[in-house]
Amino acid sequence: MERTGAAAVIIGNEVLTAKVHDLNGPHLIKRLREVGIPLHSVETVLDDVDAIVDAVARARRKARYVFTSGGIGPTHDDVTVRAVALAMGRNVVRLQEMLDLIMSRATEERPVTAEGLRLADAPEGAVLLPQADMWFPVLTVDDIFLLPGVPQLFRMQLETVLARLSGSPVAVSCLYLRLGESDIAAVLDRVALDMPHVAIGSYPEFDTDKDYRVKVTVESAQRGPVDDALTRILTGLPEGAVVRRE
Amino acid sequence: MERTGAAAVIIGNEVLTAKVHDLNGPHLIKRLREVGIPLHSVETVLDDVDAIVDAVARARRKARYVFTSGGIGPTHDDVTVRAVALAMGRNVVRLQEMLDLIMSRATEERPVTAEGLRLADAPEGAVLLPQADMWFPVLTVDDIFLLPGVPQLFRMQLETVLARLSGSPVAVSCLYLRLGESDIAAVLDRVALDMPHVAIGSYPEFDTDKDYRVKVTVESAQRGPVDDALTRILTGLPEGAVVRRE
Repeated sequence: MERTGAAAVIIGNEVLTAKVHDLNGPHLIKRLREVGIPLHSVETVLDDVDAIVDAVARARRKARYVFTSGGIGPTHDDVTVRAVALAMGRNVVRLQEMLDLIMSRATEERPVTAEGLRLADAPEGAVLLPQADMWFPVLTVDDIFLLPGVPQLFRMQLETVLARLSGSPVAVSCLYLRLGESDIAAVLDRVALDMPHVAIGSYPEFDTDKDYRVKVTVESAQRGPVDDALTRILTGLPEGAVVRRE
Repeated sequence: MERTGAAAVIIGNEVLTAKVHDLNGPHLIKRLREVGIPLHSVETVLDDVDAIVDAVARARRKARYVFTSGGIGPTHDDVTVRAVALAMGRNVVRLQEMLDLIMSRATEERPVTAEGLRLADAPEGAVLLPQADMWFPVLTVDDIFLLPGVPQLFRMQLETVLARLSGSPVAVSCLYLRLGESDIAAVLDRVALDMPHVAIGSYPEFDTDKDYRVKVTVESAQRGPVDDALTRILTGLPEGAVVRRE
């Protein structure tokens, strides 16, 4: 199977125990969509080596790019580097380039501790991507990007990564309908079956303040198939079904 | 392996393509924490049968309770029932009880369509949990709860489910420290290693407006071990390290 698009693994005890809201998953989803890299899945797991190994290995089997968030500091709960190495069947090594960076930042007041040096640990073969306004580079190995969990750092590092990748934006159109899902299902069925390269989504709205009952989305890599599918859906719907289109 | 706690599978093309923010995952996380049911993972996948089967089967291997969100309407993209049945090795059957409910709601103006009857499809062995203020019951099979993706419906159905489960709230304490993670890692290491039944989290803060540099969380099923771990951490830290505790 060809590996395409991206997958994300959020390493987050603090998310799953409701101590913080995950901001990194939603931000990654938004940015990948903007640059046109399709996303297979976002999985939030505990800070547990086995759970991370399993999630990263699976992400890697389907996706070309894997993003992890969190677990890359110097404390006992930072196990992402070890887990990514295990998922790839590689050793953990100490990167000289990163050691040099850490040492260069040491001061008499804040000497380097043995634990501080753990920041230089990486899966064998890892590469550091320098960042414009930040001393800490992006740690990456074979298109796996190990980003930090702290949201402001995650965002900066993500931009460094995205600047190196290329995607292709998606063509999308929406129909807002005054019929219910059961009434339009037969039409959508037919078009979805005939046009497998167009993704058709159907989203019911139960808020009676809204002027529509179902939103239908039609998307594809190209504009042509989207317009074709739209025409076919509109032809199949009874007159007056459409509130508006976007 | 004993199956404990919960796991969630969010079925969400619309989430992964940034059309909507997922509200159900965060809400589920918060409510499970409040009632004291530990959560292993939240996985957001595409509306794809294979992806859902895989995610549900994995969730079921580790968790006693599995919650799915989305994909249970009458349209072509609603494949959750089929995927859950496949993950359990069961057939899809049409539930008479649900058929009766659907038929009882039909009117001359809004007759039942063939596609509308799909709402009565369920994995073999499924049970319907009645809900107080809603005609649509909760669909459940063997502690898998198939909840709708629409947030207001998800929330109502979740409460129906949670009223039947029992959890045990967690004891938790926090320390806010003026030291960095590298400076406290050795102390946390020791306590974490000695007390495996206490979960110790370390979360750096890089916003310089805040009065602390690291937040440490200590939690366990019982208050006693939390207090013991806190005492050990405080003893290990240099004087003046603590900004405050909660």
